[in-house]
Amino acid sequence: MSGIFGMISKNNTHVSRIVYYGLYGIQHRGQVCAGMAVNNNGFIDYFKELGLVHEVFTQDKIDRLMGKMAIGHVNTNTGITTSNSVINAQPLVVGYKRGGLALVHDGAIVNYKKLKQEMEDGGAIFQSQLDGEVIAMLIARFHKDSIEDAIIQTLGLIKGSYSFIIMTNDCIFAARDPFGMKPLSIGKLGEDYVLSSETCGFETVGAKYVRDVAPGELIAIDENGVRTIQHKPFKRKLCFFETIYFSRPDSLIDGESIYLSRIESGRELARQTPVDADIVIGAPDSGIVAAIGYAEESGIPYAEGIIKNRYVGRTFIQPTQEIREMGVRIKLNPLKENINGKRVILVDDSVVRGTTIKQTVKMLRDDGAKEVHIRIASPPVKRHCYLGMDTPTEEHLIAAGMSVSEIEKSIEADSLGYISLEGLSNSMIYPSGFCTGCFNGDYPIAKE
Amino acid sequence: MSGIFGMISKNNTHVSRIVYYGLYGIQHRGQVCAGMAVNNNGFIDYFKELGLVHEVFTQDKIDRLMGKMAIGHVNTNTGITTSNSVINAQPLVVGYKRGGLALVHDGAIVNYKKLKQEMEDGGAIFQSQLDGEVIAMLIARFHKDSIEDAIIQTLGLIKGSYSFIIMTNDCIFAARDPFGMKPLSIGKLGEDYVLSSETCGFETVGAKYVRDVAPGELIAIDENGVRTIQHKPFKRKLCFFETIYFSRPDSLIDGESIYLSRIESGRELARQTPVDADIVIGAPDSGIVAAIGYAEESGIPYAEGIIKNRYVGRTFIQPTQEIREMGVRIKLNPLKENINGKRVILVDDSVVRGTTIKQTVKMLRDDGAKEVHIRIASPPVKRHCYLGMDTPTEEHLIAAGMSVSEIEKSIEADSLGYISLEGLSNSMIYPSGFCTGCFNGDYPIAKE
Amino acid sequence: MSGIFGMISKNNTHVSRIVYYGLYGIQHRGQVCAGMAVNNNGFIDYFKELGLVHEVFTQDKIDRLMGKMAIGHVNTNTGITTSNSVINAQPLVVGYKRGGLALVHDGAIVNYKKLKQEMEDGGAIFQSQLDGEVIAMLIARFHKDSIEDAIIQTLGLIKGSYSFIIMTNDCIFAARDPFGMKPLSIGKLGEDYVLSSETCGFETVGAKYVRDVAPGELIAIDENGVRTIQHKPFKRKLCFFETIYFSRPDSLIDGESIYLSRIESGRELARQTPVDADIVIGAPDSGIVAAIGYAEESGIPYAEGIIKNRYVGRTFIQPTQEIREMGVRIKLNPLKENINGKRVILVDDSVVRGTTIKQTVKMLRDDGAKEVHIRIASPPVKRHCYLGMDTPTEEHLIAAGMSVSEIEKSIEADSLGYISLEGLSNSMIYPSGFCTGCFNGDYPIAKE
Amino acid sequence: MSGIFGMISKNNTHVSRIVYYGLYGIQHRGQVCAGMAVNNNGFIDYFKELGLVHEVFTQDKIDRLMGKMAIGHVNTNTGITTSNSVINAQPLVVGYKRGGLALVHDGAIVNYKKLKQEMEDGGAIFQSQLDGEVIAMLIARFHKDSIEDAIIQTLGLIKGSYSFIIMTNDCIFAARDPFGMKPLSIGKLGEDYVLSSETCGFETVGAKYVRDVAPGELIAIDENGVRTIQHKPFKRKLCFFETIYFSRPDSLIDGESIYLSRIESGRELARQTPVDADIVIGAPDSGIVAAIGYAEESGIPYAEGIIKNRYVGRTFIQPTQEIREMGVRIKLNPLKENINGKRVILVDDSVVRGTTIKQTVKMLRDDGAKEVHIRIASPPVKRHCYLGMDTPTEEHLIAAGMSVSEIEKSIEADSLGYISLEGLSNSMIYPSGFCTGCFNGDYPIAKE
Repeated sequence: MSGIFGMISKNNTHVSRIVYYGLYGIQHRGQVCAGMAVNNNGFIDYFKELGLVHEVFTQDKIDRLMGKMAIGHVNTNTGITTSNSVINAQPLVVGYKRGGLALVHDGAIVNYKKLKQEMEDGGAIFQSQLDGEVIAMLIARFHKDSIEDAIIQTLGLIKGSYSFIIMTNDCIFAARDPFGMKPLSIGKLGEDYVLSSETCGFETVGAKYVRDVAPGELIAIDENGVRTIQHKPFKRKLCFFETIYFSRPDSLIDGESIYLSRIESGRELARQTPVDADIVIGAPDSGIVAAIGYAEESGIPYAEGIIKNRYVGRTFIQPTQEIREMGVRIKLNPLKENINGKRVILVDDSVVRGTTIKQTVKMLRDDGAKEVHIRIASPPVKRHCYLGMDTPTEEHLIAAGMSVSEIEKSIEADSLGYISLEGLSNSMIYPSGFCTGCFNGDYPIAKE
Repeated sequence: MSGIFGMISKNNTHVSRIVYYGLYGIQHRGQVCAGMAVNNNGFIDYFKELGLVHEVFTQDKIDRLMGKMAIGHVNTNTGITTSNSVINAQPLVVGYKRGGLALVHDGAIVNYKKLKQEMEDGGAIFQSQLDGEVIAMLIARFHKDSIEDAIIQTLGLIKGSYSFIIMTNDCIFAARDPFGMKPLSIGKLGEDYVLSSETCGFETVGAKYVRDVAPGELIAIDENGVRTIQHKPFKRKLCFFETIYFSRPDSLIDGESIYLSRIESGRELARQTPVDADIVIGAPDSGIVAAIGYAEESGIPYAEGIIKNRYVGRTFIQPTQEIREMGVRIKLNPLKENINGKRVILVDDSVVRGTTIKQTVKMLRDDGAKEVHIRIASPPVKRHCYLGMDTPTEEHLIAAGMSVSEIEKSIEADSLGYISLEGLSNSMIYPSGFCTGCFNGDYPIAKE
Repeated sequence: MSGIFGMISKNNTHVSRIVYYGLYGIQHRGQVCAGMAVNNNGFIDYFKELGLVHEVFTQDKIDRLMGKMAIGHVNTNTGITTSNSVINAQPLVVGYKRGGLALVHDGAIVNYKKLKQEMEDGGAIFQSQLDGEVIAMLIARFHKDSIEDAIIQTLGLIKGSYSFIIMTNDCIFAARDPFGMKPLSIGKLGEDYVLSSETCGFETVGAKYVRDVAPGELIAIDENGVRTIQHKPFKRKLCFFETIYFSRPDSLIDGESIYLSRIESGRELARQTPVDADIVIGAPDSGIVAAIGYAEESGIPYAEGIIKNRYVGRTFIQPTQEIREMGVRIKLNPLKENINGKRVILVDDSVVRGTTIKQTVKMLRDDGAKEVHIRIASPPVKRHCYLGMDTPTEEHLIAAGMSVSEIEKSIEADSLGYISLEGLSNSMIYPSGFCTGCFNGDYPIAKE
Repeated sequence: MSGIFGMISKNNTHVSRIVYYGLYGIQHRGQVCAGMAVNNNGFIDYFKELGLVHEVFTQDKIDRLMGKMAIGHVNTNTGITTSNSVINAQPLVVGYKRGGLALVHDGAIVNYKKLKQEMEDGGAIFQSQLDGEVIAMLIARFHKDSIEDAIIQTLGLIKGSYSFIIMTNDCIFAARDPFGMKPLSIGKLGEDYVLSSETCGFETVGAKYVRDVAPGELIAIDENGVRTIQHKPFKRKLCFFETIYFSRPDSLIDGESIYLSRIESGRELARQTPVDADIVIGAPDSGIVAAIGYAEESGIPYAEGIIKNRYVGRTFIQPTQEIREMGVRIKLNPLKENINGKRVILVDDSVVRGTTIKQTVKMLRDDGAKEVHIRIASPPVKRHCYLGMDTPTEEHLIAAGMSVSEIEKSIEADSLGYISLEGLSNSMIYPSGFCTGCFNGDYPIAKE
């Protein structure tokens, strides 16, 4: 997963200072590396580096990134060795026959390898593992008279999940795949336009949400405003994990409140998997909202049950054996007063490998919980995702090989309940507007 | 405010790796600088630097800090120019006639200036603005045959709030002032002892809470275990802000749960300042627990209302004018779905200058709140604190010059309610065990 | 100008530790950025960054760069904005149909733009301004069955000056352009082979000089040793500035000692431009050897006349106006005792813009020189070099627009003498083996 | 050894920018750490850190160090563990009864331990191993009405070698010990005064040399100019190694040119230890000048024989075994063309442990030298120096336990010759003005 942000201004010649705060607002979408490209009177300058936004972009870096247009990126991982991970950081900046372009991309192109192979057959070289390198190369090949045509041709070839922003000499293009698997919203800051993976990025810079880039839509923003170039949507199939886990609860995606969706799924979870208990707690941070919903519906009091240490960083020292045994306690600590002697319902957003939830059950018991009931606000994750969610392959998915009761036993919970896929879907405004591939294998796009 | 942590082990010759995680567990007590001293077979080595624990202590730093004893410190500010702030970082490490010692200190010595003057009259030089420098100098002067006697004599001279840990060649001493204004707890990790400003520091390293250093108690920990050297308590007068604001809710102080105290104060606040509304929200992070208590008591549903951006750092770029106008929105963003059209009760832990709460009221209204009712889980802060809480002088305290109804008007709230001091006190297990100076001027120690 | 170094070992699985010292030995060929790529069992890992070799490659970086093959690069400039100069650092690492390759290059391809254009016409994108990107792309296109054939085809297309090393999965290739404009030598370290821009790079790692890669030669080094693949030399035309200025005096190029060449040119300079004086001094560092030769031939005593501050760095603070007026004195300081009251002959290797020599004349006069006679161990530099020497365009070359007597007047010297081109050539072992383009426009390769 | 620099200006409110370049000019006196303190309208701000001047003082650091007065320091070592070496960096900045002061010191106080003990007996604490901490403490104790009196009293107590600069609120004091063992010169930059360990520091900033602080002199510089407060010289006994090794050859000390002294000692060395040979070479850098003198006197041609790699740094990677065997070749490389087949005289400034010279002899032989004759421009170093030269204790001094012929054999030279102490002395303008303790034990100050 990653986060993208862009801005084009009429008069502000130093928009990198705003994109900086926009990226800060979507920092939760990627903490490994950050980058930004600006168009400084036709010259594309850029900087990207490992680290959080405020670590990467020091004042002097931002001071030098001048221009009326800028696009930026935050990323969770870079898919390459640690010694040089910046190679797969974004934006990707290239020059070609018709000029230069910078590109930021969130998603996964499923025919990346095939397209790459075709281009390699034609003699192309690649300098990263970025999907965007294929996209940029296609645009360069197709660009004769019109870059719009080139982008349209490129969109005709690539398959997969994507939201991307492309910055050229005088225009910003943004596109979302026909299933709208990845979010991308349009905002306005005064007279100027901004683009953000999530609407919470607008809040940080004071922009107003205008609308989402529609699934299948390609837009151009220049000094004349926003223009739709193409719109070929299939039925929207947003990645369900955007709602369940990735997005910040104050974001809207396609008009749907992440917070309200999570509350509703928590309520439905309570209806589907009732259990008698003393308190409902949430696994911080992404289980909290569903836990509040569960508590409301069940009438069992909601309480803070686990405190999360907020100080994150890339560079922790190697834990020694005795610290390693602490497991989740390094970052997650139960509120013993709420746990001790209580029958606890712990609501989490999802279970992937099952390691953390097992440690958490043990931790709650160690701190005196009389019973620990696990409630999961998403169905069992059974399938590897090749469309950008980065779930591991199936041998690492606990629900791929075990039934719910087996998992319950394995994690040593008193009870375990998942929301049904139908229940989750019905908690949404657009019940059928989601990709459910990782739950039931029903991917809108086949693997290649 | 700052946080202190220490450890002495029988067999582990590299305890800095554990103290590191202990400091990480109390990182919320100070984000400006961090430091650690170790006793490596009689040689005190140390490192301190600006930054968070994981930024300051890289693997190679920790690898070099060998030894069976270590003490560490995190600090909120350093009270000196930015160019050189590490000068006032702790631990303070000194050599004197009888050997060397390292010291970490949380609190404020009120007769610091007077003692310093006396020593300066005798020709002493000072290399920092640390209270600890006076403490170390006194110990050095008094130390004839026994360091214990020297520390006791020193404790007889210093007045103020303090919890400190001193590491000598073969022993760790810890003391808490007679009013116990600052917290300090003892834990056990296997056979070894640890000390922490807050019990949540024990959680991170897997230590068991044993007891608190008592108000007025001086203890020594060496290979024979914990020994009380002196105990001259006055009535405990813990800084009320420890409960209200500073401490992590999963910590216990003198056996009292911070979480339960905050829940109870939220309930009492609801009883004292009822108002009809649609939802109760908390100001993150320190207002959340009281808000949950308020919701429980009032029956008005609790909801997450404001999302806080978790990515903190010392090095943000200078906001431009337009970003500066964003004010609190850079880090705090309302959940519009919960706010829009609603009558909102916002519970915060305290109001100091009033700037943030005013911006927050405006922000909630801008996002559609029909009514904004502010409820504060502590009484009006009217007096400057010279005992370590770092509240500003009175001209900066909004409640020093305004009545509650004037503040209500100033911050443009529909209503404003504070808990009474009596109500707050009665929410605690030990109602009279707190310093209430910043509320009513009733300080246990006079200013000098 | 830049420096390249490579190594391939039979048994040493961590050759980056040797290439590090090899690069350190040729650090004088480039101080702006450094980089290294290793072949770790078929996976090419690499790191490049702004800074000196010992700044870029910290212990942990080198520790991670494992493998039996490695190539490295140091560079004087990167030809791009300061904010992101690492983009044009080398090695260039690419993947293509047949695998991956890493490339380091010293020189300038004159038909770079034309080749790039052709490839852009075919849809190629470029991510740097490196000549090597064109070379890599050509190899990728031509590589069907044999990479050797692909490299041969590529060499058939590129024109210009080049020495490069290419690392593939199992082999290291090295090539030198048909005029041998840039140096490249082969050495042996035990049973293993090393390559270095200059033989002084062998000294640092204890390797023995074997021979130079011949002009026009393409070699392959693998576990079977060195093999010549192709050899199409024109007459050697080494860049004259390699001898005059770039190379370290202890290096051999094509068997010719830089030191002895400089001594001989200093002697010839003395014969051609005699003048009565008290001492001969050299402009540090590159004028020193010729000054010793001049002194020997003229019988006028050699003395150290100007001390150079050895502490170099990228990051000096901005000099204030008064410091700026100090000009060369910040780094160069006359030995007043040797200068005061003396008639001084200052020998320098060359004059390009004329700014430094003018300041130096003034500095020597200010320090009491009675007469200042400038002797230059190369002919007037009149033409811009497009073959990798990085001389400025002609409007910046003092000798492009002025006669010698005009320059003499302009720099306010008592006399000025240049060695003749014939004299310089005859000082060399291979008098006609040099490119003289910047002196007389006689470039072996036409500009494109 | 270390270097000190100071400036006081009438009008320039940002003299740190000049002191920066002054420290850069004396960087050869210490490469481990650097520091600077400024007096910004009565507030002493400072910064010190490990690294070279240009590494420690980035633009933003210098921008913040405002004020009309500044003193700075460069140091060779810090005498404490690597993890925290900045503790022993200078300036030392202290506050005391009468105000604050900053101090930089070059030298060694022989009664440091005794004075420290006395003060510790009185209860003092120490936070570093700096001699200056004792000096500052004494001044603080003696300062009643007049700081001048306090400094005079302090000078009456301390014994040893010292040059120091003290910055108070309105004045800069400078003192040199009665034997003038360490150098310190006064210069003028426009109307403003500067102080520097060596006159080459003046060159870098464009200051004019005025005179030296005299041995035994204490001066004050304020807005009224330079004033001598006290002058109690013994006979000057400058550390001989200042002339032989430490100082830059373009510096003057007490009016004597380092360059000319070294030339003359080289000439005398040639007279005393003649040998038939083909060339004379110098060990870079400090043997070069004496080698030129030797060549002049002997008539044997001088040549560059060993090239020194100029790129220094604190952070080299750990050499592997095979690189370690390279020994001196990592930084020193013979010019084979000058060595091969030749009878070589190598002139070095001194021999301390003998390790490097032995490796160098071997290196020259390996590169083909027919004979290697070692000539040393100082007498055998037989005694440990406790007065600031940092020579090792006697078990590490090769000449402490071996005769010249034994050393000759040990280092495997064809011949070895030292200059006699008389010969060296007579090469100086003031033959008896030097401390000869390390040669013959005749120290002007007894050890304590």
